[in-house]
Amino acid sequence: MSPFCAAVDWGTSSFRLFLLDAVGDVLAERRSGEGMSAVREGEGGFAAVLERHLADIAAPADCPVVCCGMVGARQGWVEAPYVETPASVAGIAAAAMRVPQQGRPVFILPGVAQRPGVEGHGGFDVMRGEETQIAGLGAQRGRRLACLPGTHSKWIAVEGETITGFATFVTGDLYAAAAGHTILKHSIGETADAFDRESFAAAFRAAFERPGEATNLMFEIRARGLLDPGHSFEAGSTLSGLLVGLELAGVKSRFGDLGRPVLLAAGRLAAVYEAAFAEAGLPCDIADADAAVRRGLFAAAKEILR
Amino acid sequence: MSPFCAAVDWGTSSFRLFLLDAVGDVLAERRSGEGMSAVREGEGGFAAVLERHLADIAAPADCPVVCCGMVGARQGWVEAPYVETPASVAGIAAAAMRVPQQGRPVFILPGVAQRPGVEGHGGFDVMRGEETQIAGLGAQRGRRLACLPGTHSKWIAVEGETITGFATFVTGDLYAAAAGHTILKHSIGETADAFDRESFAAAFRAAFERPGEATNLMFEIRARGLLDPGHSFEAGSTLSGLLVGLELAGVKSRFGDLGRPVLLAAGRLAAVYEAAFAEAGLPCDIADADAAVRRGLFAAAKEILR
Repeated sequence: MSPFCAAVDWGTSSFRLFLLDAVGDVLAERRSGEGMSAVREGEGGFAAVLERHLADIAAPADCPVVCCGMVGARQGWVEAPYVETPASVAGIAAAAMRVPQQGRPVFILPGVAQRPGVEGHGGFDVMRGEETQIAGLGAQRGRRLACLPGTHSKWIAVEGETITGFATFVTGDLYAAAAGHTILKHSIGETADAFDRESFAAAFRAAFERPGEATNLMFEIRARGLLDPGHSFEAGSTLSGLLVGLELAGVKSRFGDLGRPVLLAAGRLAAVYEAAFAEAGLPCDIADADAAVRRGLFAAAKEILR
Repeated sequence: MSPFCAAVDWGTSSFRLFLLDAVGDVLAERRSGEGMSAVREGEGGFAAVLERHLADIAAPADCPVVCCGMVGARQGWVEAPYVETPASVAGIAAAAMRVPQQGRPVFILPGVAQRPGVEGHGGFDVMRGEETQIAGLGAQRGRRLACLPGTHSKWIAVEGETITGFATFVTGDLYAAAAGHTILKHSIGETADAFDRESFAAAFRAAFERPGEATNLMFEIRARGLLDPGHSFEAGSTLSGLLVGLELAGVKSRFGDLGRPVLLAAGRLAAVYEAAFAEAGLPCDIADADAAVRRGLFAAAKEILR
């Protein structure tokens, strides 16, 4: 089948391109580390990176391209200004920016911004790329929360095909800062790669139930290492449990009833958040984040190119 | 009057020595940056630093010395093993370690350790030096909480002259890590020195009332900077408010009724915590941390040397 479009998920640190046919099936695929922060203006910039990958998979010269992610940030290729919540799939696609002076049609999807007071459960917040994963989940019945864990974990409330509100937590970012640049650097180190479910669960429960104690429980990691040298707890998994527990307490505080969230994650992050949901007694569904962003880009392409 | 003892507060990054007479008045005083981490074994180590300062103030060769702080840690001069809660002033003094092979009597006070389950409101925790500030406050009627803010803020419950329990919060440590090593480094920077009471107060209230949202409210600092470029809030004071709010929520969770805490702080830290207490509707007293540690060392010296 001939290509319908190229779909590009272009983030801060990664580039993924899918050549899709008219029903959204993958004809070819490219992945690289050429995220926004690796693209150099002197080497032809974003256009050169994109065209090289398209040439490698022999995409036709007139094949349109739809991109999402940090490529549309101010410091990206062409700024695609945020649309505001409530934001529908169609509204996001309608606000796509066409990149000027390209030989082929290239569109960049906007991110979504939230301002206080609109939905009641949110302050200022922004996303770029995650809205396209949400679009790829398809229409939801009633309100559904989606959890996209990571450096900046995002919890997104969706009704039908509309993002009604969201909240970002600096969970992964703060983990790295605390593990590397506080007194906890003496406790976390060579063991940082092991995930100890029991240590994680105990810390998660403590912070989820008593979120105010989180920064005290962080110091306890250090104190326990000094006072209980034969201890069996794992410091990194404990810190992770504290920060994810704090996050889930905050999600409850922000959104109230969590229902049955959908978790968009894979690998270790999926395992960590599944453990958290299990401790919180929360049923969840897992969705493939890769497939979601691809389907979301395809849905946007159909809106833009029809 | 002739000297009774030299009292030394010897922490990680600072050295303070007071030559005291028999009623605890100051005859002479020395301050330097020769904290534990600046002392070099090759240059005569701790003994050389101490003797040089004593010589500078012409202290008699037999004048006894009592020290507190990190100088008694494993990586310090001579390890003074922790005493455990409940820990009385007399009990702490009784566990002082005499430094061997010194020309004069030199004693190092132990720190205090807490193990879970003893007091009900505490997990593993340690202090070194703060117990001597507490001793300097004198006997308390009923239970009193003392707040010693800083890199690792300590909240200490005192009954009479006994430390019954305590909790350390990584507030200052986490502030520096978050401000310097997360996405917030883009928001906090040139303005980090200004204390904006209104920004602090708004953030404090939010985190104190809804501690689970703290890591979401951290991201909001960044998002607000992007979406509300004419904003009037100060990012550093906001982050400070969030972390101090989280701390006070945790203190409430750990200790229940806070009563009328005594704040052992000076300068900017005192102003920040006074603002926090005012927002929380909490009356407090302020004590001079410098005078407290000197009086605590003097009380210990009287116990040890009698």
